[in-house]
Amino acid sequence: MTGDASVHPMWLPDEAFRALGARRVLLAADVAEPVVATVLDELRRASARWGGTVVVADGSTPATGHDVVLAVASHAATPGSGSAREAHASTAPYAPVLRALLGGALTVDAGAPLQDGMFAVGRQDGVAVVVAAPGAALLYGMHALVRHGERAFEGPDELLWDLPVQDVRMLDHWDNVDVHDVMGQVERGYSGGSIFYDAGQLRDDLSRARAYARLLGSVGINAVGLNNVNVHRTEARLLTDRLGDVVRLAEVFRPHGIRVYLSVSFAAPMTIGGLPSSDPIDPEVQAWWAARAADVYAAVPDFGGFVVKADSEGRPGPFAYGRDHADGANLLARALAPYGGTVFWRAFVYDHTQDWRDRSTDRARAAYDHFAPLDGRFDDNVVLQVKYGPMDFQVREPVSPVIAAMPRTRLAVELQVTQEYTGQQQHAVWLGPQWSEILAFGFHGEGSRTVAEIAAGLPGRGTDPRPFPAAGLVAVSNVGDDEFWTGHPLAQANLYTFARLAWDPSADVRAVLDEWIGLTFPGPEPGGGTEPVVRETLHAVLDESWRTYEAYTSPLGVGFMVRPGHHYGPDVDGYEYTPWGTYHFADRDGIGVDRTRATGTGYTSQYPAPWRDVYEDLATVPDELLLFFHHVPYGHVLRDGTTVIQHVYDTHFAGAARTEELAKAWTDVEGRVPDALFARVAERLAEQVRSAHEWRDQLTTYFRRKSGVPDARGRTIY
Amino acid sequence: MTGDASVHPMWLPDEAFRALGARRVLLAADVAEPVVATVLDELRRASARWGGTVVVADGSTPATGHDVVLAVASHAATPGSGSAREAHASTAPYAPVLRALLGGALTVDAGAPLQDGMFAVGRQDGVAVVVAAPGAALLYGMHALVRHGERAFEGPDELLWDLPVQDVRMLDHWDNVDVHDVMGQVERGYSGGSIFYDAGQLRDDLSRARAYARLLGSVGINAVGLNNVNVHRTEARLLTDRLGDVVRLAEVFRPHGIRVYLSVSFAAPMTIGGLPSSDPIDPEVQAWWAARAADVYAAVPDFGGFVVKADSEGRPGPFAYGRDHADGANLLARALAPYGGTVFWRAFVYDHTQDWRDRSTDRARAAYDHFAPLDGRFDDNVVLQVKYGPMDFQVREPVSPVIAAMPRTRLAVELQVTQEYTGQQQHAVWLGPQWSEILAFGFHGEGSRTVAEIAAGLPGRGTDPRPFPAAGLVAVSNVGDDEFWTGHPLAQANLYTFARLAWDPSADVRAVLDEWIGLTFPGPEPGGGTEPVVRETLHAVLDESWRTYEAYTSPLGVGFMVRPGHHYGPDVDGYEYTPWGTYHFADRDGIGVDRTRATGTGYTSQYPAPWRDVYEDLATVPDELLLFFHHVPYGHVLRDGTTVIQHVYDTHFAGAARTEELAKAWTDVEGRVPDALFARVAERLAEQVRSAHEWRDQLTTYFRRKSGVPDARGRTIY
Repeated sequence: MTGDASVHPMWLPDEAFRALGARRVLLAADVAEPVVATVLDELRRASARWGGTVVVADGSTPATGHDVVLAVASHAATPGSGSAREAHASTAPYAPVLRALLGGALTVDAGAPLQDGMFAVGRQDGVAVVVAAPGAALLYGMHALVRHGERAFEGPDELLWDLPVQDVRMLDHWDNVDVHDVMGQVERGYSGGSIFYDAGQLRDDLSRARAYARLLGSVGINAVGLNNVNVHRTEARLLTDRLGDVVRLAEVFRPHGIRVYLSVSFAAPMTIGGLPSSDPIDPEVQAWWAARAADVYAAVPDFGGFVVKADSEGRPGPFAYGRDHADGANLLARALAPYGGTVFWRAFVYDHTQDWRDRSTDRARAAYDHFAPLDGRFDDNVVLQVKYGPMDFQVREPVSPVIAAMPRTRLAVELQVTQEYTGQQQHAVWLGPQWSEILAFGFHGEGSRTVAEIAAGLPGRGTDPRPFPAAGLVAVSNVGDDEFWTGHPLAQANLYTFARLAWDPSADVRAVLDEWIGLTFPGPEPGGGTEPVVRETLHAVLDESWRTYEAYTSPLGVGFMVRPGHHYGPDVDGYEYTPWGTYHFADRDGIGVDRTRATGTGYTSQYPAPWRDVYEDLATVPDELLLFFHHVPYGHVLRDGTTVIQHVYDTHFAGAARTEELAKAWTDVEGRVPDALFARVAERLAEQVRSAHEWRDQLTTYFRRKSGVPDARGRTIY
Repeated sequence: MTGDASVHPMWLPDEAFRALGARRVLLAADVAEPVVATVLDELRRASARWGGTVVVADGSTPATGHDVVLAVASHAATPGSGSAREAHASTAPYAPVLRALLGGALTVDAGAPLQDGMFAVGRQDGVAVVVAAPGAALLYGMHALVRHGERAFEGPDELLWDLPVQDVRMLDHWDNVDVHDVMGQVERGYSGGSIFYDAGQLRDDLSRARAYARLLGSVGINAVGLNNVNVHRTEARLLTDRLGDVVRLAEVFRPHGIRVYLSVSFAAPMTIGGLPSSDPIDPEVQAWWAARAADVYAAVPDFGGFVVKADSEGRPGPFAYGRDHADGANLLARALAPYGGTVFWRAFVYDHTQDWRDRSTDRARAAYDHFAPLDGRFDDNVVLQVKYGPMDFQVREPVSPVIAAMPRTRLAVELQVTQEYTGQQQHAVWLGPQWSEILAFGFHGEGSRTVAEIAAGLPGRGTDPRPFPAAGLVAVSNVGDDEFWTGHPLAQANLYTFARLAWDPSADVRAVLDEWIGLTFPGPEPGGGTEPVVRETLHAVLDESWRTYEAYTSPLGVGFMVRPGHHYGPDVDGYEYTPWGTYHFADRDGIGVDRTRATGTGYTSQYPAPWRDVYEDLATVPDELLLFFHHVPYGHVLRDGTTVIQHVYDTHFAGAARTEELAKAWTDVEGRVPDALFARVAERLAEQVRSAHEWRDQLTTYFRRKSGVPDARGRTIY
């Protein structure tokens, strides 16, 4: 379906469909539904490749003679008492349902509340079965079967129900239609050009976009933002005279259960509409947005809604009119409401013209200070989109306190699949462990309601069982028109892992990575699976890669220290005297940002207990966040007994040395993975080794010169 | 002649022509000559404006009834014994010559060796007289008369001879034809777009270029490089299918005595010519360049030649073929020689991919190490173009030792009128004092042969009287399509001063500035001249501006500390860990680059005595170059008794405070200079105040944090 043999299949190589494609498959669903048609396409493609058969059920289809049955269940007339989410990963007694199905019905009554995306997969009377809720769930179920491979045809009769934990599983594209002077075709894109646009136009050939939609649908992504949140002149017109482009892209994504969204400019009523104002309480402005929503939904009935970056890094917003962000978001929400659309309103609001001399202002505080007081003021179809940390997608940040501060607001947590601050797809950095750690963070301490649960709208445990309103997870995509999609072929694992964690945030990420390896590197023997050495090498390169990257870059949660502008490579003071609010305050005696209530910016007060106290106290703050919360002398002793300065030396030498080991390890798979992929990864690993040593030498030299403290191990510092 | 009333006239407002334009003028010269035609145009324009008359002499013109006579002298049949340059600024007994002229001859025999550009101006029998060598000299003489104003019609009968000290008085334009992705239309241009090109094309309307040529001709500039030394794809074709553009620009400059040059790419035989190589010893390559030269001279018979940046900052060059720079330069020189053309070969060659960890490599050494061994190997029509300092146009550098190292090579000294590292025409920085100091630098100590004398080919004094081969001065221009030409209106003074110093490097620069003020700000009263408060304010703002800028930027000759890329504003460590070779090595104990022979890079050995020893010794090195030559502790005591660290604090507080005084001083001229000019300067001064305080605070904070030494005066450091 890529239409281009030179494009890498990611986790959907033909081999992945071998087990299913070689079987006799019955599809019991209405193939007039777009997603069912996609399932049928996949089945036919697989059977054509692997010699199986596909039958679409009608009233006369015999109940026997099938190896696999895929069917859609109808919604239950009366929802059950428990939350459907609790059915997740449990075995449910739906045998009677299946029997009815095998008796010839096109749909079955699941007898329980079905939710979007919910399906059961397993075995019944020796047949592999998928029963799915209406909508995209059948596609998800089929791909679950694909991932099971031969295992789907083994073992006892049982059905395992599954459903996505997060309602919203979204990828934002920072693609520009016009090539931007500074940011290029894709802002913070490290994988070539946009798969949607080329130099000012939607591409005529959308085969790459179709292949991408298929990949996303296979792992449950259900929403895609089509353009950069920094909305420039041409992109603003996607809402008006370029609406035809949105229609075409919606057609690409619809068959895979994915709704499309547009990033819009808050100033559009003026810049496109010719109005004198964009004030949210101006009836003309409200009418303008209402008219735009009507136009969009007339063209794209299942349009998702808007993504908005307002009053942020120079973007226009409601502040210009003395209105707040609730006023701004609700303006757009009310335009979309008649059609069921949603506004994703980004909470990434801070003063990007801060005076570095002003030690009292703290960018980390900004989102909370702006948004927490607005809780309860947002309409139901507003989702507040909050970056996972208070700064900007650093390799290590505390979890944003905004996430726990808005129990009456739908809230999506934003991750960054594109590796802006984590190696830009030059470095092999698998972010699964970071995301897993973030999603499992309990805001009231160990065992309390987690980031993932807040986003999912799950009830809390302990003191406050009320569920937050549900939204989900959003991330910035990392693909481009590169032959491997992601520049660094191993960065595909980040895209895969994000989707799987959006489905199930509690998944064992190492198992997710293993699953990705199995699908992506099927091995040379027909049906033989991934060669052990390939599997081991990929784990060796990726398992600890996030911590390795952290080791050789900015230490102990202090962040940044990157080259301004492009953000690649080290520059310790690069942002130290800039208006961006990202400082480390290193002097000859110590380093770090005092964010305590006692003596600093007071940021710690934005957390509920126990974190407000854990972070406040030098005795309890986790080492990995030490410099985020405290300014300490270089001689401050960490829990492992080393000083901060020696920790900087040790981690940088160790991290850089580790990259050499990874580059060496990779040579083990030469000839066992495709040559072009091998070569690309080898080339990137060589750059990672070079860059890691540059980081090591700049960081150690900078701190040696500043602290005057020699390395206890006497290694070379310049 | 600007064709656009909104464009500022610079130093040629109508008022400047009042004294001449109100007189009865006789022009005794062949008006078929392009430059004579220009003189006639000027005279007619002036008389039309101010009510005088202009007569072109023929055999019957009466000898009386003229207030002013301008005439061309013929070359003497036998040159006199002394060097014509010695006639400079002396009174010569040419009364008989003038009487012959006034008797009706079109030209007169000067009776002495005339040189290009030489003229006499003064009074004879009560008539104001200009007698000039053939060529552009008559234009220069007329403008000398213009500058004299009413004084030309007063005083005793005497003729003062004048001639340019530098043969080459050249401005290089770093204009791109195509807008460059990063560098824009004009590389390092701070004055808007190019006056030659607009978005990929030569401008249809060249009226700005014509106005510019007129301005340059009026102050004796005789050569202009038409395009950026970084030659990109489109610009390379000025040599081939865009030759018509060169023809048109040559027509613009020719009437003002200015020859045009093209920057060319050493790789052009491959990139344009389709040859497999650009090797200078390849006969095909030689033939290709010979053919290009033939084409250019067929189209532009007075074409000047080529400007070449080779093997420099990524530009192609002879190193790729194992050839040296003499091989490279001579390749082009031999192509141009049949037509009298010249190659300006830039000596700005260094390793721009240096490893910052490597303390043994010193960018300051590079030009000398590359070029000094090649002395004697360059053809006569090669001019080695050497930047004034060993680094790159910093506010303070020692003079480049290359200038004294090549007695058998024609050599031009390159200055930078465009203020890349000196405030980018946001800051009022008049560079006259810097250039004057550089040009007067004696390479063998006080009273010895100076930089200006080497460039001019004047004989030395003392031990080595042999003259160097003559070339001259080159500078990067600072104009653009801005209404004031130079962004900051006061930056016009830099363009004027460069031209006047190229004419006479020993001129009193303060008098040159005063002359510029008088011409540019003629005052409100007809013939009343510049108002005293305007004159005083401009001196107050500009006289010490270079030293003020030095005070609040990088200290004691250490250089850089600017934001990478655009080079505006402070970033102390901006280039510290980069490949560019521009480091300060500040640590908690001290700062500076050890370039001594004893313990450092050995750069001091590139100077002849006494400088090799003066710079080597901490006891004798001038304070203003201390950190260029030595790494010293912050406590090192300067000659005024302050420590290095206290000097950093004191100069930065004083420099920043001074900018506030200048901004305040400027308000005195409101209503006394044109409103638009007043406002533009006020706006730029406000930015200078802001930027100077940013410099002050970043520099003092950086060094306070690093050194731990408090300011002895207890001022605010962040």
